[in-house]
Amino acid sequence: MYNMDKLYEAVEAKGHVCVGLDTAIDYIPEKERLRASSEAEAVLAYNRAVIDATLDAAACYKVQIACYEELGLAGLNAYAQTLKYLRGKGALIIADIKRGDIADTARRYARAHFQGDFEADFVTISPYMGMDSVEPWLDWADKNGKGAFVLMRTSNKGMKDFEYLELKDDAASVQRGQGSRRLYDAVGDKLSALAEQRKGRYGYGAFGAVVGCTEQDEAAAIRARRANLFFLIPGYGAQGGGAEDAALLLRQGNGGVVNASRSILMAWSAAGLPTGGADNAFAAQAARKAAVEMRDAIRTAAAKR
Amino acid sequence: MYNMDKLYEAVEAKGHVCVGLDTAIDYIPEKERLRASSEAEAVLAYNRAVIDATLDAAACYKVQIACYEELGLAGLNAYAQTLKYLRGKGALIIADIKRGDIADTARRYARAHFQGDFEADFVTISPYMGMDSVEPWLDWADKNGKGAFVLMRTSNKGMKDFEYLELKDDAASVQRGQGSRRLYDAVGDKLSALAEQRKGRYGYGAFGAVVGCTEQDEAAAIRARRANLFFLIPGYGAQGGGAEDAALLLRQGNGGVVNASRSILMAWSAAGLPTGGADNAFAAQAARKAAVEMRDAIRTAAAKR
Repeated sequence: MYNMDKLYEAVEAKGHVCVGLDTAIDYIPEKERLRASSEAEAVLAYNRAVIDATLDAAACYKVQIACYEELGLAGLNAYAQTLKYLRGKGALIIADIKRGDIADTARRYARAHFQGDFEADFVTISPYMGMDSVEPWLDWADKNGKGAFVLMRTSNKGMKDFEYLELKDDAASVQRGQGSRRLYDAVGDKLSALAEQRKGRYGYGAFGAVVGCTEQDEAAAIRARRANLFFLIPGYGAQGGGAEDAALLLRQGNGGVVNASRSILMAWSAAGLPTGGADNAFAAQAARKAAVEMRDAIRTAAAKR
Repeated sequence: MYNMDKLYEAVEAKGHVCVGLDTAIDYIPEKERLRASSEAEAVLAYNRAVIDATLDAAACYKVQIACYEELGLAGLNAYAQTLKYLRGKGALIIADIKRGDIADTARRYARAHFQGDFEADFVTISPYMGMDSVEPWLDWADKNGKGAFVLMRTSNKGMKDFEYLELKDDAASVQRGQGSRRLYDAVGDKLSALAEQRKGRYGYGAFGAVVGCTEQDEAAAIRARRANLFFLIPGYGAQGGGAEDAALLLRQGNGGVVNASRSILMAWSAAGLPTGGADNAFAAQAARKAAVEMRDAIRTAAAKR
């Protein structure tokens, strides 16, 4: 059984929310920052509180390693401890590492993030250098079900610089009546072919794609053409996308998880502060409320389609 | 003064060799592996020996972080210690991390790798998500001279999958008589423009590009069109490129460093083994000899052009 199958089942049971643990130090209530022995300790304690409060409202957790690398070795220790804590709770973990390197190096990265201190269930991968930077990770799908989301069509402004560029039409694509492809279509075509080779019990490949909230027509077209790709969908909440936008990238009510980081981690700052200021318990309850509301909003939007 | 200017001067003084510290555990003589208290310790001790032996024959060192991430927290400690050792020797360091993420996340990665435990002089960056994943790093060029090499045209087989795809001609490019661009040309165009904005004293921008050894005509064309980009050139030695191939990507005898990893780190295995087997001192001398021969071969090839 692939981890992607487990993720499908988690979505069925708990909804589409992926809690993004992009825990910046200034997301944490001041009281807790002062109490902690170090920034890394404060981050870890905050993560534990948020995880405990959101377990039944989240399909999975995405941990953005940059937030931990930023704090050096102590930060990476907090990263390892966060993953360990999530594993102990039986939660599915996406390591948002966006690694992308070839052959031997990709194999090393896979060993780094699919076992040992930094073991996760899924990683994110950057495809720029080509499929030899993606394929070595796939051995782990066969071996122990590990999965990945490869960057395809992201929702940042700079997406237009390269991902969105139109390619010179190849005859085959014109024959299929698809017109000219964009770079992200070329990536998608390769990923669809990979997914076909390692297809799980719910019709999705062991490896999926990162596809951000975007224009309605484009989102619908992407979803229609990529039936066998499970999507990791960023751009919700603080980045501007809403439940309706995210729902366009789902398929029969599943087929994707929707990441929100700041809107969950910082929900406490928008709530009426308690006497004595916010602490982790207060912040965790606000995070829970935000995750539940997001879950329900996406379920409602998905049901309408 | 940008670090890229320092690298230019290092090439003038010491030649074009970039020693790649992709130190896999099986590159290290067995005797030393058994002697060390851990794999990470063995890697660090090996690095120190190789660094000491190659300092005057190398323009810089490239440290492939995947080799260290693979060993978990202990490995990243060895990574940090390797960088610290190099800094102590005054060597220029390229952190081969190929990070690529947007906005806030890119700023976090920059703080992770341009200061603190993992401080390096240069990083490598993957451009897939667009220029908003590159530009945040540039603040550090203004602040303290830091530099980067952005993946442009690599030398791996999978390069053909995306980097090499032809783009639909835009009118401007056709007018300039350049015909249709490939994806890597689009990346190069953006990088050339960036380099023009932050140009150092030798005509090269603070940020350069990763360009691998390739066909002669293509290499000459890339070099001609990218006069203001300093190149990090992989693919030498074990990956098949030779001194003549590398020289095609140089410009007036400078403008690039050429990375070799395995052919330097593993040079000892091709030498006649001493009685009692190889140790780090023996391996380091073999590494030195390989680096010096490589330096001389590239200088000779560059002088012929």
